[in-house]
Amino acid sequence: MNVAVICRILGVALEVEAAFMAPALGISLYKNEWGAVAGFSATMALLLLCGVILRRIKVTRTEYYAREGFVTVGLTWLVLSLFGALPLYMSHAVPSYVDCFFEIVSGFTTTGASVIAAVEDLPMGILYWRSFTNWLGGMGVLVFVLSVSNITDNSGDALHLLRAESPGVKVGKLVPRMQRSTKILYMIYIAISVLMFLLLVVDMPVFDALTAVFATGGTGGFSVKNLGMAVYSTYSQIVMTVFMLLFSVNFTVYYLILVRRFRTAFRNEELWTFAGVYAACVAVITWNILPQCESLSTALHHSSFTVASIISTTGFSITDFDLWPWLSKTVLVILMFCGACAGSTGGGVKVVRVVLMFKYIKRGVRRAIHPKEVDIIHMDGEVVEDETMDSVAVFLLVYLVLFIGMLLLLALEGLDFTTTFSGLAACLNNIGPALGKAGPALNYNCFSWFGKIILSFAMLFGRLEVYPMLMLFIPSAWKK
Amino acid sequence: MNVAVICRILGVALEVEAAFMAPALGISLYKNEWGAVAGFSATMALLLLCGVILRRIKVTRTEYYAREGFVTVGLTWLVLSLFGALPLYMSHAVPSYVDCFFEIVSGFTTTGASVIAAVEDLPMGILYWRSFTNWLGGMGVLVFVLSVSNITDNSGDALHLLRAESPGVKVGKLVPRMQRSTKILYMIYIAISVLMFLLLVVDMPVFDALTAVFATGGTGGFSVKNLGMAVYSTYSQIVMTVFMLLFSVNFTVYYLILVRRFRTAFRNEELWTFAGVYAACVAVITWNILPQCESLSTALHHSSFTVASIISTTGFSITDFDLWPWLSKTVLVILMFCGACAGSTGGGVKVVRVVLMFKYIKRGVRRAIHPKEVDIIHMDGEVVEDETMDSVAVFLLVYLVLFIGMLLLLALEGLDFTTTFSGLAACLNNIGPALGKAGPALNYNCFSWFGKIILSFAMLFGRLEVYPMLMLFIPSAWKK
Repeated sequence: MNVAVICRILGVALEVEAAFMAPALGISLYKNEWGAVAGFSATMALLLLCGVILRRIKVTRTEYYAREGFVTVGLTWLVLSLFGALPLYMSHAVPSYVDCFFEIVSGFTTTGASVIAAVEDLPMGILYWRSFTNWLGGMGVLVFVLSVSNITDNSGDALHLLRAESPGVKVGKLVPRMQRSTKILYMIYIAISVLMFLLLVVDMPVFDALTAVFATGGTGGFSVKNLGMAVYSTYSQIVMTVFMLLFSVNFTVYYLILVRRFRTAFRNEELWTFAGVYAACVAVITWNILPQCESLSTALHHSSFTVASIISTTGFSITDFDLWPWLSKTVLVILMFCGACAGSTGGGVKVVRVVLMFKYIKRGVRRAIHPKEVDIIHMDGEVVEDETMDSVAVFLLVYLVLFIGMLLLLALEGLDFTTTFSGLAACLNNIGPALGKAGPALNYNCFSWFGKIILSFAMLFGRLEVYPMLMLFIPSAWKK
Repeated sequence: MNVAVICRILGVALEVEAAFMAPALGISLYKNEWGAVAGFSATMALLLLCGVILRRIKVTRTEYYAREGFVTVGLTWLVLSLFGALPLYMSHAVPSYVDCFFEIVSGFTTTGASVIAAVEDLPMGILYWRSFTNWLGGMGVLVFVLSVSNITDNSGDALHLLRAESPGVKVGKLVPRMQRSTKILYMIYIAISVLMFLLLVVDMPVFDALTAVFATGGTGGFSVKNLGMAVYSTYSQIVMTVFMLLFSVNFTVYYLILVRRFRTAFRNEELWTFAGVYAACVAVITWNILPQCESLSTALHHSSFTVASIISTTGFSITDFDLWPWLSKTVLVILMFCGACAGSTGGGVKVVRVVLMFKYIKRGVRRAIHPKEVDIIHMDGEVVEDETMDSVAVFLLVYLVLFIGMLLLLALEGLDFTTTFSGLAACLNNIGPALGKAGPALNYNCFSWFGKIILSFAMLFGRLEVYPMLMLFIPSAWKK
């Protein structure tokens, strides 16, 4: 394990985090929020100090492989969250450090789960920072670092880093080399965010529009209002619905459209499956909640917003879906695991893996019926290698085992099955609100500090697609 | 699809079912239960008539492959359940035919889930038949048919049938060719059952001991008492605990012990994992329920009995574990999916698959860290072929998808998440009692006729390890 390089990269990431805190500090200064000003300044100083020290570590060896990439990513996200929580704690905005950590992990991982009941009481700078972590976490922190700086001399390093932070599933040639396109993808991300801001700002205050864009762009889900997105107009809610879906699509599709390769852009099974699943779930839930809505259009509005919110793993709510019939709630819990498209800012296991799982199952069942036939799995017209298929199957099973293991730990809290199960599902898949005691009208304060730490790790495991966090817990990965 | 051969085998199975009903008819005659007598005689006549007709179908083609094996098994189990439910219905013991069907499917699949609140009110012949289906279903109906009759001229047919009814996982040479050993395995089954009967009959009435043996042997779980196994002495409950565990072990282990191949018998990773999981769960639950028990020995007794009952997929209860803390209940729900050892009478996904899943995950994670290393999976000292590993992964994912699909259908019932989730888990894995409204102190009447049919199919899917039932729903499997 090349610890020196890992420390160097971590150092750069800490300095970048300090820079990202500057606007929040500015807002707090402007608003005379002196507690928050103190919190941000002290944290920024600490970040810069640690960053400078870490960057002075001498790198003697150059080797940097997959495991170094995983460990760098896992460690960076954990450390950025630990530091990112400090302003909340130091400003006394949130009294418990575990709560601050939970809140900022929830931000960076684009979960949007909150332990703060009355967000409107928070200083504006803190609110800004909290929402901004959503936007930052959506695209990936290290991806950004790499797109603006030449962190290492070795281009292989960058590749391993990017693979670890934005893993996805390698299928065909649709996904271009991320490294080359990092800047383009970030430009697309910024462009769509700006478009959304312009559409929202005509209808709500600038600060609300900005934070809503941060939360939607990263499919995070933090809101600056106690009542969530229910306080905004139907127009704004529809804009959010559309943009939650847009941010759930693989950004490569936008890239391909930009370079006018329409045929390749739309020959995308994941995209169409995503659209189909979305439409089907909206239809079922609209039908299911119709009796408790005043009209069909209300039911359709609530259901299209909520399904977009859950499948994109944003987690906004405009209605308390915990009051919906069980069929709708079950659909939502299952959707949580499905998640958005790979290469988007959304979480979950990703639609592409679900599609590949069904193809894998179909082949397996065919093999059981006709043992001698040879079947090849295709995706977007290309052959899926057995190795890729194998890694997808492993990922799904690791995810399952991880979920079960964490469910057992979380069961120690003694909360009911619905809250524990859906709360863990909502955190692992980076959604935010769950059912029961962690429903949209409530928050995660029903869990103790122990449960909040478990859930924080669940969010990190989910956002980084398991491996980078897993590496931190496997001693053999650290050996030479 | 060779329909003629399938019909012939089905015909024989129906005749065998008629023969198996004879003792129940005898009991009803002896006890002057005229409704039951009428029910049994009419059903037996119908079974024999259909059997004779089906057996007269002329077989022109001899081909009989894997898919014929699956369809035969799926169809036979379904039809035997449809007929097996008739005596309950005709005797007016259970007014609704869907309830009768649920109850007998629950019997044959060794689930033991019941919709009858007051079983003590049922005629003795009906109670006997209900419990006997547990014992019969434990070993497999067609396995029995094949062990006593030469159903087909082609030995390949028998092999495909056996593979479909008792699939398991082909690992190494520990599992001998089932066809040759069918009779030996049945003899072992009978021997252990007789031993258990002798140990129980000193402490309870003959009828109770006999039905308890049926329910334990098949890991079924039907009881002839309204209060379940709580009415018996601690001695009897300990005997049951031990035998539930014994019936959860791969019967090949007993065979190997009989032929004095001790080293092979105990070099069995599945067995030791099973023992380890059992011990760990008993320890955790004993600690967890201690505060609500009068003494450590009571806690240990309740926990060792209940964990044995769930992991063996029997489903007996001596205490209302729905009143336990959520940690214990969560452990039990997860154990439901784990299930017993392959080649036993227990259900679930089987310990061997869980062990292989962990090895598969471990290899997958290693591959992610060290992409160039080659790893081979071993089990019991033998190499596990990639094909076997692949089929295990497919099975686990099919099982998962099946569970999710059925969960959605069952959610239409509108019951709470805990009841729906645990009820489906308890039926798919052939346990019996679940949590919430389907807890050990209650029954499955909280579900409507629709829910009961879904759950009946879940039981059949689970008991036959998915494929035989799946074939009935795949049109392409029926094509030439």
